[in-house]
Amino acid sequence: MERLMTLFSYASQTDIWAAVVALLTAGAEHVFSLVVFRCPCSPDLNFVYGLSFLLVPALALLLLGYILNKKTWILLTGTCRIWSCDWVTANMTALLYISNFALVAPSSWIAVALLSGNYFECAMAGTNVSSSYGSHLCEDTSDVEQCQRELFRFPCGKGSGVSEADRNQVMLILKAHSQILGWLLIASIMLFNLLLICLGRCTSPISYLQLKFWRTYTKEENSLLNSRIVEHARKLAGRNLNSFFTDTPLKPFRSPLLICGRRSA
Amino acid sequence: MERLMTLFSYASQTDIWAAVVALLTAGAEHVFSLVVFRCPCSPDLNFVYGLSFLLVPALALLLLGYILNKKTWILLTGTCRIWSCDWVTANMTALLYISNFALVAPSSWIAVALLSGNYFECAMAGTNVSSSYGSHLCEDTSDVEQCQRELFRFPCGKGSGVSEADRNQVMLILKAHSQILGWLLIASIMLFNLLLICLGRCTSPISYLQLKFWRTYTKEENSLLNSRIVEHARKLAGRNLNSFFTDTPLKPFRSPLLICGRRSA
Amino acid sequence: MERLMTLFSYASQTDIWAAVVALLTAGAEHVFSLVVFRCPCSPDLNFVYGLSFLLVPALALLLLGYILNKKTWILLTGTCRIWSCDWVTANMTALLYISNFALVAPSSWIAVALLSGNYFECAMAGTNVSSSYGSHLCEDTSDVEQCQRELFRFPCGKGSGVSEADRNQVMLILKAHSQILGWLLIASIMLFNLLLICLGRCTSPISYLQLKFWRTYTKEENSLLNSRIVEHARKLAGRNLNSFFTDTPLKPFRSPLLICGRRSA
Repeated sequence: MERLMTLFSYASQTDIWAAVVALLTAGAEHVFSLVVFRCPCSPDLNFVYGLSFLLVPALALLLLGYILNKKTWILLTGTCRIWSCDWVTANMTALLYISNFALVAPSSWIAVALLSGNYFECAMAGTNVSSSYGSHLCEDTSDVEQCQRELFRFPCGKGSGVSEADRNQVMLILKAHSQILGWLLIASIMLFNLLLICLGRCTSPISYLQLKFWRTYTKEENSLLNSRIVEHARKLAGRNLNSFFTDTPLKPFRSPLLICGRRSA
Repeated sequence: MERLMTLFSYASQTDIWAAVVALLTAGAEHVFSLVVFRCPCSPDLNFVYGLSFLLVPALALLLLGYILNKKTWILLTGTCRIWSCDWVTANMTALLYISNFALVAPSSWIAVALLSGNYFECAMAGTNVSSSYGSHLCEDTSDVEQCQRELFRFPCGKGSGVSEADRNQVMLILKAHSQILGWLLIASIMLFNLLLICLGRCTSPISYLQLKFWRTYTKEENSLLNSRIVEHARKLAGRNLNSFFTDTPLKPFRSPLLICGRRSA
Repeated sequence: MERLMTLFSYASQTDIWAAVVALLTAGAEHVFSLVVFRCPCSPDLNFVYGLSFLLVPALALLLLGYILNKKTWILLTGTCRIWSCDWVTANMTALLYISNFALVAPSSWIAVALLSGNYFECAMAGTNVSSSYGSHLCEDTSDVEQCQRELFRFPCGKGSGVSEADRNQVMLILKAHSQILGWLLIASIMLFNLLLICLGRCTSPISYLQLKFWRTYTKEENSLLNSRIVEHARKLAGRNLNSFFTDTPLKPFRSPLLICGRRSA
């Protein structure tokens, strides 16, 4: 067990976070797909309903990823005054890094949803939107006209004028399309990540050892800074409250944290 | 139990990792094969669908193997400036080693998938792609023409014009082909690994004892280096924050980790 | 329980490993035979399919046995320069010992597979390959011609033109052959092992007491050597890192482990 923990400790903290987030998202998708999702089987609603289950949670998770990432706010706080093209190019790497981590949850949502296939089946069975796609789906059935007219009813297991076999066939094709899309998405995410990290590392002006040093430095600086901030805040609060309770004038208090202006952290 | 742990500790860390990764992959494949996979039984889709379940997860796992391996980044960081044929030949061994370890998960995926046979059955029952293979499959059935025409429906347990016995026969042959391929893959992976390690070790200029010494040396150097890096980083962070909070000029700080340029780790 | 532990502690570590490996292999064979194996019952495939389940896992396990055995690499590291007939005869004992241990898993696989009989039944029911064997199997049935023609279908429990009794009779004979082969294999492995150890011990120039002494010596030397290697590695790493961080020239470091050339371990 201890040995396993040692092995586990090799992975970096970011990797573990990413894995946890991806697993939680996949679980949430499964629960939603089983409990909440009911395809309306209406010609007008299918497409919007299916796509909203496929994309809106992904969008929400993306935004949540940006909101919860401390690095977003380190980067953005106070930048409205200095916003320019220079700023964007200078902080491109940080922006990319933040986006990449924020994309973990949404892309797992979409990938798992496409692999389970429910949302895609419902969305694509809406006849209004996918007329050419609908005719492609129905081309192997016995009555193409009827199949296309009833297509939007298929995800609910109904369809008066179409045989059970034809309906199952169409649903299997829809699921297959959804799952192929899901795998393609997963493969392209992996490929994109590898290339991105590869590019970043290959063009790095410093060696792996120095990179490791700067990472350790950031961590150490951060923890020291936090303890200094607490210390300064406690002192300032003590001085202010003392002055309030004893009704004496404020003593001068010098701290670089009280000087106006922006220092990038 | 303790005795077993002692026995267990003989295996190297890499071997244990490889075994854990292979087992997890096999388990994941089993779950996917049972829960997610539904052969579409459509003449156009079968081949693409089956192959995408067989190969795309393997590709994704391969890329993940490269991304998560620390050695990849030790090797690649900052190499764009010095990339050349010399570099490739000099680091061939390291590249081979990394690739070999990254291939553990994908090759287990493909091997287990071929042994369970579902994906291969689905892929090869697509008539469009495997016309000569399809005729070979159907040659022992009572109605060859009909069998070939309905071949793509077999994995779903349907097939109106073909007898149950013939269908089962064809499915058994497909499964047999898949499993024979799976065993061949496993045997060739093992053989390739043995030859690779054998070649590497046989042409080694140093003895086993020296190799063991250098491995121990690498481990010791690494742990010493880590403690030194933390120490330097803590000192530098303390100096910088002191200078920031007391508003005094920075004292000089000398460390080889701050000198630009590349030192292979 | 305690008594059992005492008995258990008499066995050498190698013996316990061998027993664990053999048991695991037998379990794996049982799982494969039940879950994965489906005889294709096709005249062309039966023989190849059955034999690939019987022999390929054994081959893979054999290669794995070589790869995971530390002694293989102690023997082979750096031998390409000195490979010759002399080398082979001089290291015959070590090679035999390694092979013998690597053969534990494959021979258990084959033995258990032959005792359960599934693979052998499937392989030998392929009529194309085993025509004379097929006629021998069918000689006691009511319709020999029909039996030989339908022989390949027997493992799947089908066979239109042959009576149930005849089919069962043939399957029992096949299973019996397989199990007799399995017992012969086990007996011959045991006999070969006994003779090999016997020969090695009988021709030994030293007494049992001296042999025991040398074994204890090897173990002690090994543990001492390990601690010395760790000590030297730690010293060398400390010297190198000191020189790197303080930017001073390297002090000389003498160790027999740094001298190039081969010393047999």
